[in-house]
Amino acid sequence: MDFTEKTVGSKVIFSGKIINVQVDTVRLPNGRESTREIVKHAEAVAVVALDNDNNIYLVKQYRKPVEETLLEIPAGILEPNEELITCAYRELEEETGLKASKMEKLLSFYSAPGFTDEKITIYLATELTKGEINFDEDELLETLKMPLIDAFNLINSGLIIDAKSIIGIQSLYNKIKIIDEKE
Amino acid sequence: MDFTEKTVGSKVIFSGKIINVQVDTVRLPNGRESTREIVKHAEAVAVVALDNDNNIYLVKQYRKPVEETLLEIPAGILEPNEELITCAYRELEEETGLKASKMEKLLSFYSAPGFTDEKITIYLATELTKGEINFDEDELLETLKMPLIDAFNLINSGLIIDAKSIIGIQSLYNKIKIIDEKE
Repeated sequence: MDFTEKTVGSKVIFSGKIINVQVDTVRLPNGRESTREIVKHAEAVAVVALDNDNNIYLVKQYRKPVEETLLEIPAGILEPNEELITCAYRELEEETGLKASKMEKLLSFYSAPGFTDEKITIYLATELTKGEINFDEDELLETLKMPLIDAFNLINSGLIIDAKSIIGIQSLYNKIKIIDEKE
Repeated sequence: MDFTEKTVGSKVIFSGKIINVQVDTVRLPNGRESTREIVKHAEAVAVVALDNDNNIYLVKQYRKPVEETLLEIPAGILEPNEELITCAYRELEEETGLKASKMEKLLSFYSAPGFTDEKITIYLATELTKGEINFDEDELLETLKMPLIDAFNLINSGLIIDAKSIIGIQSLYNKIKIIDEKE
């Protein structure tokens, strides 16, 4: 069955710094018309950086939309014409001061496809050395490192509550477990 | 260090059916002022329904914001004054026609806390029996079931790409593995 919704109209509601909002009028496969509220957001990357002692790096950052300070893996939005992997190297170094020699794609996902096109690709960064921290001017954050297993447990205790961080940590945890079991 | 951003102004941009958009002016801890674009969204639940043969249930649904038909776990938005767990029972039955006798919270997460307050709580539904399908009128979807391990593998092959579904499936997979290892 084809579920595709044909766009019969589109109206821009808001053009902001990080989001644009539009309302599309669509024709459903059953012939009915409906509207879809859509938040457009630039493509993004997030990075799980793993050192030789199985520690990962997290950033603590206040998130106004949820009015909480959250523990997250480093992440950021693509600059114009930037490659995903270049953005991953750049954001990791800017937010944590770490240079990675190896950057490997773990997976991509849509954050909330019911109302936004935001897509995030998660990378695994390894072979880490010291680089240079350089925050965005409106971005205040604190870096910390902890064993991967502790971060994994913080998901279950509800202290890591951000989707990209949960997906990045769980994916890396499963990847390492599967490798361990095969050896 | 306190990262809290004080709201010094707030302007409503858009009030829609599923989202509201506002721009807040904030004072940062360093004294600077900035703006935050915020998409307000109702709280939601998602359900991983597991039968006695270790199958889970997925819904196939066109998502206009990403212009793709996605495979997702059943989910929906809370009705006014509705309890999370009541919403979980209701959405599961409406979207898949399954009644669950047991509903257990797995975890909660923020979809994209950089620009939206959307929070999703994932439940594990078990002891399933046949109920009654009842879609929202603008919601066209198809239900399918597959072994949990197949769904887990579809994440790694990029065919399950929706954040809540990845988190629900990975969390349940890890929960079952941990139980298996203890036994």
